[in-house]
Amino acid sequence: MGRWEPNARGRLEQAALELFVERGFEQTTVAEIAQRAGLTERTFFRHFADKREVLFAGGSALKELLVNAVAQAPDDVAPLDAVADALQAAAPHLQQRGDYPMQRQAVIAANPELRERELIKLAGLATAMAAALRDRGVPEPTASLAAEAGIAVFRVAFERWTSEDCRPDLAMLMRDSLDQLKAVTATR
Amino acid sequence: MGRWEPNARGRLEQAALELFVERGFEQTTVAEIAQRAGLTERTFFRHFADKREVLFAGGSALKELLVNAVAQAPDDVAPLDAVADALQAAAPHLQQRGDYPMQRQAVIAANPELRERELIKLAGLATAMAAALRDRGVPEPTASLAAEAGIAVFRVAFERWTSEDCRPDLAMLMRDSLDQLKAVTATR
Repeated sequence: MGRWEPNARGRLEQAALELFVERGFEQTTVAEIAQRAGLTERTFFRHFADKREVLFAGGSALKELLVNAVAQAPDDVAPLDAVADALQAAAPHLQQRGDYPMQRQAVIAANPELRERELIKLAGLATAMAAALRDRGVPEPTASLAAEAGIAVFRVAFERWTSEDCRPDLAMLMRDSLDQLKAVTATR
Repeated sequence: MGRWEPNARGRLEQAALELFVERGFEQTTVAEIAQRAGLTERTFFRHFADKREVLFAGGSALKELLVNAVAQAPDDVAPLDAVADALQAAAPHLQQRGDYPMQRQAVIAANPELRERELIKLAGLATAMAAALRDRGVPEPTASLAAEAGIAVFRVAFERWTSEDCRPDLAMLMRDSLDQLKAVTATR
């Protein structure tokens, strides 16, 4: 095996995103990503199955974080609040990544296939949180509705967060979106 | 152009679904679908781009129905209720199709690629209804949250409808899911 490559994964991630932003996702090759990172293609494939996975590899850590947060919520917390609190707990992890989430979002928005993949990732997060709620004894359809509503809140907040120049606090935007959802459903 | 083929589209649809249920989606060819329907492959391709489209061609009519219903809701109807009423208006169209929706659902559930396509279709319905709400003067993020919440209600109701043997009334299940969503969000 090759020489020690400090933070190879992070360097590949950054190089890939730079190239996706500069040239577009379709026009970027794995060879170019590896070259920009000063690494070999072989090293790339030790970390990622393909160039698309660079953008989605973080999804499984996010899912684990959300599922654990839902599982560990106090017993008396209502289902939707357990979901909302879990999403809030994820906010600092996204915020500490600087411009990465905004750039990633721009790359995804520009490519239909990536937009579909992102939808599927978000649906997977909802399914995982619904399962975590059922494990807490929350019945269906409450578990699915709370998880899906939570993901809708997350999407709306995340979109505002990545599109506004002033870069507001993500956790605050999530609380705001949750309040708006509650207002939307408090009718008739 | 060939002879007159009465209800070719409906016959192809039924033949395709029968074969998908019997053999699985992957294992069914367009040639087999055409043969089962007593038609030619050429006729198949006059109606559908590929075998997957047989399952999803109804999506654009559903989208149009939902968008029109949202657009035509009385002015004083709240956003989520406009969405919920639109989904209710779609229920009879689904109910009058007999076993088709249940069989279609079973075929989709058995195939990851089709499950993804169905997710994307539902996300497209939410996007279209959010746009219809904005056209009514509903601001963001209310429009997106109401549309996404409505689709969550629809998914939950539709899944119950297609999975229960007693075949309950779909519109009633939608009202029930909407009430459950309102209960889920009425906390803290």
